[in-house]
Order: sequence, then C-alpha cells, then structure tokens
Amino acid sequence: MSNPFWSPALAQLEPYVPGEQPRGRRLIKLNTNENPYPPSPRALEVLADGQLADALRRYPDPESSDLRAAIASRFGLDAGQVFVGNGSDEVLAHSFYSFFRRDEPLLFPDITYSFYPVYCQLYGIEYRTPALRDDFSIAVKEYAGPAAGAILPNPNAPSGRYLPLADIERLLQLQPERVVVIDEAYIDFGGDSAAPLIDRYPNLLVIHTLSKSYSLAGLRLGFALGQEHLIEGLNRTKNSFNSYPIDAIAQRLAAAAIGDGTHLAACCGKVIATRERVTQALQALAFDVVPSKANFVLARPRGIDAETLYRELRQRDILVRYFNKPRISEYLRISIGTDSEMDALLRNCEEIMGSQPE
Amino acid sequence: MSNPFWSPALAQLEPYVPGEQPRGRRLIKLNTNENPYPPSPRALEVLADGQLADALRRYPDPESSDLRAAIASRFGLDAGQVFVGNGSDEVLAHSFYSFFRRDEPLLFPDITYSFYPVYCQLYGIEYRTPALRDDFSIAVKEYAGPAAGAILPNPNAPSGRYLPLADIERLLQLQPERVVVIDEAYIDFGGDSAAPLIDRYPNLLVIHTLSKSYSLAGLRLGFALGQEHLIEGLNRTKNSFNSYPIDAIAQRLAAAAIGDGTHLAACCGKVIATRERVTQALQALAFDVVPSKANFVLARPRGIDAETLYRELRQRDILVRYFNKPRISEYLRISIGTDSEMDALLRNCEEIMGSQPE
Repeated sequence: MSNPFWSPALAQLEPYVPGEQPRGRRLIKLNTNENPYPPSPRALEVLADGQLADALRRYPDPESSDLRAAIASRFGLDAGQVFVGNGSDEVLAHSFYSFFRRDEPLLFPDITYSFYPVYCQLYGIEYRTPALRDDFSIAVKEYAGPAAGAILPNPNAPSGRYLPLADIERLLQLQPERVVVIDEAYIDFGGDSAAPLIDRYPNLLVIHTLSKSYSLAGLRLGFALGQEHLIEGLNRTKNSFNSYPIDAIAQRLAAAAIGDGTHLAACCGKVIATRERVTQALQALAFDVVPSKANFVLARPRGIDAETLYRELRQRDILVRYFNKPRISEYLRISIGTDSEMDALLRNCEEIMGSQPE
Repeated sequence: MSNPFWSPALAQLEPYVPGEQPRGRRLIKLNTNENPYPPSPRALEVLADGQLADALRRYPDPESSDLRAAIASRFGLDAGQVFVGNGSDEVLAHSFYSFFRRDEPLLFPDITYSFYPVYCQLYGIEYRTPALRDDFSIAVKEYAGPAAGAILPNPNAPSGRYLPLADIERLLQLQPERVVVIDEAYIDFGGDSAAPLIDRYPNLLVIHTLSKSYSLAGLRLGFALGQEHLIEGLNRTKNSFNSYPIDAIAQRLAAAAIGDGTHLAACCGKVIATRERVTQALQALAFDVVPSKANFVLARPRGIDAETLYRELRQRDILVRYFNKPRISEYLRISIGTDSEMDALLRNCEEIMGSQPE
C-alpha cells in the first residue's frame, strides 16, 4: 500500500492489530487480558477532586513527579529510576528507539508480544527470534552473541509461561553491554519481578503497566524501572517526542492506584485462584493448557479446530483471542474473567465440543 | 553526552525544553500560553459519570470514534478526516514521521515552534528554514522548490503573526506534491482556520489542540484534519507506536468540550479583548509589540534589556517567556491572562522600567 504523500518508511509499515474492542454489545469479553475487577476505590476518588478543573486548564507536570515518587516508593527505588509513559506500549516504543537502534539484531522469542516486530519496523531495527522450546519455555542460551539487546515478556505472551529470576540473571549476563528489557505486564499474577536486580545490572530495564493487575487499561499508564542512566535515555527520547505525555488526571489517579497495594493484592489473588480452577477445568474438558502465571491461559482444544471453537464462542457472545500464526494456530488465548464469566465459558465450550462429530 | 547503552541516535538528540511549570508556588503564570479561564462545565461533568470505573477497567476505544465524530461535526468533515493524538505534540511527531522523512529538506520558518527541529532530529529529517521578514511575517515565496514538505504555525509562534488564508493557499500550490502542515494551535483567537480548504487540497493537514482555546492543556488532546489518505497514513504510524493513545476519560471529556462551542467563543472573546487592550497598554508603556492573533504577544521593551526585565518580573512572581535565541532575544513572549493578571504585569513593568537608569 502506498500514496504519493506518504514517506517511504510509512508505506512499508505493517501496524499492530489490537484485540477487538466491541462497542455497544453485552459480551463476555475474554480477549484482551483486562482485569474483571474494578480499579482501586482510592484511585476513583481522585475524580471527585474539585481542583481538577484548574489542573486541566494548565499543562500537567511534565516530569510526573508525584506519580514517579509513588512508583519508586512501591519498588524501593529512587524517583530517578522511574520513567512513566502513555501506556506501556509508549514506554516500549521509546525503549526500542533509545536502546535497540544498532547495527546488530535485537533478540526476542519467536512467539511473543506481536508489537515487538512492529516497533522494529517503525525504527528500522533488525531482529532475530530464537525459537521457544516445544513446551513454549524460553531457551536462555539462545540469547548469546552480538545483538542490539534483548526483550521478552515475563510471563511471556501469549503463552503465560514464566521464566524464573535465575534465568533472567543468566540472560542479563549473556548481554552485559546491551540493554535487556523484561516486559512484566503480567508479573503481578504470580511471578517475581526482576526489579530487585536493578541495582546490580546496569543493563536491566523492567517495564510494567497499570492495564492488567491494576484494572486501569482505560487509563493508559505504563512505567519503566532501571538505573538512572537508562531512565535519562528514555527521558531524552520522550522529550524529543512529547513533553507532556501523562495528563493531569492520569497522574493523580495512577499515583492513588499504585498506593493501594491492598486492593492490588486482593484482585490479583482472585484472578490467580480463578486461573488455577479454570486450568484444571479446561484440562478435564479436553484442552492442553500451557502453565500460566499471567491473567490468561493459552489452551489447545482436542477434537475441535481452535478457530472453529473461537467462532462458535463468538456466536454465543463470548470473545476469546485466536492468533492465526505458526505454532499457536491450534490454541486459544483466554483471559481470566470473573468466576461466573469463566463458568459460562466452560459451559459453552462443553456444549460446543460435545456436539462435534467424533 | 553519551552512554554505552544508548543507541547512537539517542546520544545525538537535543530534546525540546518546555516552558517552566513551577509547582507549589502562587505565581502569575504567563509563560506557556495557557488559557486563564476554566474549561467547559459540560466537559467537567464527565468526571461525575458513574460509568467511568468500568470504562477505566477496559481498554479505551482505540479509534476514539465518538470524539472524532464530535470534532468532525464541528468542522463539517467526516470522521475519517480526523485523527486524534495525545496532545498536538504527538500528532506533530506522527506527522513528521508519516510525511516528512524524505530525501529533500523540510521547510519551516527560522523563528517558529522550537519543537520542529527536535522532531527532525528524532527522525533524521533534513530541514531548511526560510527567514521571516524583519516584521516577523512569513515570505511565502521562499517555500518553493524541492522539499519534503512544509510546516508552519498559523498564527506563528512565538510571534503571534497571522498569515491570511490566501497566502496559505499560495503555499499549498507551491508544494502540490508534498504535505503542508498548518499548525493552528492558536487559530481560535481571531484567525480563520484552513480547514475549509481540505476538500480542495489533498496535501493540506491542519493540526489543532485543546490546550489553548479549550483551556485543557492538562488533558493532552490534539487532532489533525485532512483528506482521508493523510489520516490513514497517520493511523498507520499511530498503530505502529501505541494503539490506544487516548484514555477513556480524555475521550469523553474532550468530546464534551468540543461540543460546547458557546463556552469556546466566550472564553476566546475575553482573551482577544484583553490582548487588544494589553497590546495598546504595552505600546503606551514603552514596548514594540508584534501584531498578534494568538493568546500571547511578543513584545520588545525599550530602555531595558529583555532578559533583565524577565528576571525582574520573575522576582516579583510574574512568569513570562524569554528565548535566548537569535532575532528574538530582545523580546518577551507574554501569555494573555485574566484582566487582573495583566494589570499586575503592566503595573510591575511600569515600576521596573521606570526605575531603570536612563
């Protein structure tokens, strides 16, 4: 596709395609890994603050100082070790520009967040994709050798598989002169964050989002943690793109949410319990389920084509994610909703799969 | 400045420096062209909507459909002719990537919004800067010849000078095969928007912001208007960077603000009246004032160094903008505040300038 007014680079982009956000329909929505529980009431209280009108009239704090202080406090870091962005996607984009535009290829798994190759195309970054093992685990030794750096989600997406911190450390040691980004969008659902490694590894950047565990996908807030020299690099890129990426309401609301660790733990605990129950139920029904530490499971139905099951569920107003891609085209990625939503999913899977010809 | 972990491109960036946003002090703040009047009450009502908790839990509409429909309706365009971004700075950044990354240089005035050369550096775009005339007006004929395109604010910043639509049309005709961006951040303060030219010029992109005339600098909302093929190009870049740049609250709040044309007209009318009065008062006091159609004036004090006056005003808790740059280093850029704020400015200027040695 091209157009005489488009730059040559633009004409070659193949944009990311997000999961469907249907409007105006009552669906059981298990396709974009949203949290089924509401955000912290303390965060929502911010909306009643009578000072917001004046805060909206003026430019927001370009440094998001209070929000960064709240994040730093949660992780036992300094505010200078925290960068915030308009969703973790923006933080990722700035990280690719800041650290991965080099002569060597960037390394990331062959099956992972599908935005990574899109950022590479946006910024002209070559990449190499070491294959996951057959069980979708990451073979860390494949990340050696000359590279622009490495990036991987932990837990990985869409597999949900978690890499223990000892393996993360091995990876950091394999690329001591390059930045290694650990994209921890799903870490609060049962994994250990790599954030405590930051003081020992100058090449470690940890990225989080408020979209999943904090139930704030609609707010667009992500952040990066790392040593100050990496955060300073991200700030240079940010200040060459958009000086004020976080609006006045989002700064306040996110800081309040970050401060409510009790709510976070309670919501994540419920999601984890449901995930474990649903994993067993899917296995009992006729699915192979990849072990997950995320708020979704990747599951392969037996006796029915995954795409067929996806379509049948959609007809019954249940939305899950199907990826027509090598190695995962026999699987569905199912976000963990409330218990009653998951019961409806299980019941409908049973009905659909029970009526299939043997 | 460099760092072994930074990409070579990052090491060469010279980021934009926004106007100061002092925290925790009562200042008369006339340095970042904010609107002194509050945003539309209809926009603020959105914050009381009990459905926001659920809207925040889910990803926002990636297309910002309702907001784009509201903008299209205001300008008599189709929603497919509207692109929205996280502040007009993000819209500008995506425009530079989408249209100006070419072998020829981009054209913009030598004195203009100082973010333009920063975007060029971010994306590796060469540029040429035709000089403004001595009265700060734009010499349109300088924008002929091979180019990657052209961009200019209208009214220009920091001069405030306005270019009539006939000149915009001449410029569009000088670059028929390249995109011409008219950055209308300040157009609502007395100029005519180029938006009605969109149907006739496939190369015209008009960019607006809610930060000035709508009193919503804290919300971070900008938009572009143009023929669908240009908007499609911006969407491709956006979807290769961040699929969901506008949060759920901002989409609703901005749509409500755009729908309140009465409030917009009333606030702009007050700012315009104050600007005209302040222009005359500054001239009477001992300033040369560039004729402005924006919510600020560029004014050169006689009998005192501009930087000295800037510092003296700052000591008296009045903040204006001083640019230590060629051609404008003898000027101050003064945002138009409320009448009482401007009276305080005038009174303090008179005191400072009256006490100067002759």
